[in-house]
Amino acid sequence: MTGVADDVDGVDLARYLAECRAMVLDEIRAMVPQHSRAGRVLYDLMLDYPMRDAKGLRPALCVAACRALGGPLEGALPSAAVLELYHNAFLIHDDVEDRSEKRRDALTLQRLHGVPIAVNVGDAMLALALQPLLDNMHRLDMGRALRILETVAVMARESAEGQAVELDWVRRARWDLADDDYLAMVDQKTGWYSFVAPVRIGAIIANAPAEVIAALEAFAGALGAAFQIQDDVLNLQAREADYGKEIAGDLWEGKHTLILLHALRSMGEADRARALAILDRPRPDTVDPARDDLAGRLRRVVPELAAAGHLDAAGRAALESLVEDVARTKTRDDVEWLLAQIGRHGSLGYAREVARARAAAAGAMLASWSWMKPSVHRAVLQSLVDYVVERDR
Amino acid sequence: MTGVADDVDGVDLARYLAECRAMVLDEIRAMVPQHSRAGRVLYDLMLDYPMRDAKGLRPALCVAACRALGGPLEGALPSAAVLELYHNAFLIHDDVEDRSEKRRDALTLQRLHGVPIAVNVGDAMLALALQPLLDNMHRLDMGRALRILETVAVMARESAEGQAVELDWVRRARWDLADDDYLAMVDQKTGWYSFVAPVRIGAIIANAPAEVIAALEAFAGALGAAFQIQDDVLNLQAREADYGKEIAGDLWEGKHTLILLHALRSMGEADRARALAILDRPRPDTVDPARDDLAGRLRRVVPELAAAGHLDAAGRAALESLVEDVARTKTRDDVEWLLAQIGRHGSLGYAREVARARAAAAGAMLASWSWMKPSVHRAVLQSLVDYVVERDR
Repeated sequence: MTGVADDVDGVDLARYLAECRAMVLDEIRAMVPQHSRAGRVLYDLMLDYPMRDAKGLRPALCVAACRALGGPLEGALPSAAVLELYHNAFLIHDDVEDRSEKRRDALTLQRLHGVPIAVNVGDAMLALALQPLLDNMHRLDMGRALRILETVAVMARESAEGQAVELDWVRRARWDLADDDYLAMVDQKTGWYSFVAPVRIGAIIANAPAEVIAALEAFAGALGAAFQIQDDVLNLQAREADYGKEIAGDLWEGKHTLILLHALRSMGEADRARALAILDRPRPDTVDPARDDLAGRLRRVVPELAAAGHLDAAGRAALESLVEDVARTKTRDDVEWLLAQIGRHGSLGYAREVARARAAAAGAMLASWSWMKPSVHRAVLQSLVDYVVERDR
Repeated sequence: MTGVADDVDGVDLARYLAECRAMVLDEIRAMVPQHSRAGRVLYDLMLDYPMRDAKGLRPALCVAACRALGGPLEGALPSAAVLELYHNAFLIHDDVEDRSEKRRDALTLQRLHGVPIAVNVGDAMLALALQPLLDNMHRLDMGRALRILETVAVMARESAEGQAVELDWVRRARWDLADDDYLAMVDQKTGWYSFVAPVRIGAIIANAPAEVIAALEAFAGALGAAFQIQDDVLNLQAREADYGKEIAGDLWEGKHTLILLHALRSMGEADRARALAILDRPRPDTVDPARDDLAGRLRRVVPELAAAGHLDAAGRAALESLVEDVARTKTRDDVEWLLAQIGRHGSLGYAREVARARAAAAGAMLASWSWMKPSVHRAVLQSLVDYVVERDR
């Protein structure tokens, strides 16, 4: 941005991402009210996720789209920061909804502070995101500010709709889904806000005509699907230290992915029944497995009572089976069995191929854009085509 | 509105509220996307709370303020509907955060569909509220539309800040609070969005000057505090059929109220210690007390094992005390003891007095407004002064 990496061929994507992210974090810090009596109990928590190590893909996409079309950096930064705020609010509420334990190498907000506080911190981020978009009226002009606000309204609605579809699958334990069901869901749930909205907003700021915006959106949509599928692949193959989330967390959570759908439909009937039974069980508490809940205490006390002669063998067996029946959770063996099935049916490779095809489609679109001049920003968009499917975190 | 009740002295508040509510529900139904694939899994659930029987105070306040100042009804309705959407989104997230079981005579959304779906439905309502506010640009004009949007941004922030303060008290089991701590919290959490924002938005639509808006806000602020305190009073004294929430739900939930703060500081040391111990216990599952959880099953199985001779008396006592120790919840006796303390120290009467003083202050303000012509709408604002403290639901 600052003159660095103006060599179009050897664009340094990592540096571009890092520079965008640093500028956007400054914007976010400036948006947080100072001296509020809710500082410690709200705004400190609000800055937690954004300040954790992250890629900053959404702001970079917005900035790169804007600048590749000749738009100004300063005009794009507040909107890019709003995208990052929305992203983090969605992550917080997602982590509540999925009962996730880890996020970006640390405990999730709901594990740290409980569900009530996490829900409210997410709400507060959404509330804070509105004012900078209104300030665009003065910063840009009314027409562009209004179109950006309308994009954000659509974006928030698309995300909630996609999330509603997924939560309904979870609630009804639905696994009889086609690839297209999954792809339509992730396009809505994450693709729209993570890829389509950032480039549309960048292009609006650059005053791009409708057909240019449409071309960028098609490119971003293909990229988004590739990105999400690769995310699911990484979740199952990464080592925790590299990845920042739990390993195979998607299997522990019973998340719907292209990989799991492929494996399920490749299995014989008996294996599928076993897989569905595993997926139906809740996850155990892996952050604090020695948690002092009723099941944990009974697992300790029942053998002690038996050893001291207060309980006979039949009584012990009845109590132990009761605990395991009610408190039955997925085990490491369960998850490893699922992983083995996924390996056996080549489901990771299958998903990787779908991701590569989407990324290649995005690449072909971009290659045809004679109307976009070569620049470091175009080169960044170009480099994302490989990045989304080759990244290892 | 339709010519009815134009007799200023005998204004029919119930009818005015009902007419406003009916018009606003039509607006809300029109905002919900038709033919979305998320219809059944999202939008049907979104309409649940708004369609339950409710007072519709916020839209009526917005409409009355607007029309009392000579503003148009049609210009106010979409913004009034947005206020109702925000209100219902806050209720949904509140019910998650407080683990509430009943809302408006029926189970809460989180009890019906689980926490994940309830959180997402609330998010979707907030998303849907944005577009009608943008459409105000064409319906009204840019200046007023922008000021309404800015009011909504402040409103959402104030609510989240007030909520954060209360959730922090809950988390840290803080009860050493002064009346002013409580009043500042509810002004932010509910007073701002329920009273101040509706009249400000109504006045903006009516093109009222700054000093008129300030006067209406002061009036609404006093009214809001009175309303909330009366809400807390009703919670402890109403019969369930009249009230629509659980009886003494605030005590079961351990909610901070002026009433409970007064009772706690009026108690002797021993009673206060007992009260704090009770407030510290979670609530039991009253919707489904026979729920098949581990504690419930053990309460049945342990006596059976003892009767069949698999477990001796010492073993039975050990297991029973383990269950009650871990799964200890508030009991009806606990809540009745708290109610008796509140009765003994006159805490309901105390809170009622504080509410009446606030309402009287609001009434005195309104009486001095020589710049507001007599009309049915002014009469509605006037009648709210008594209504907020005399209502029985």
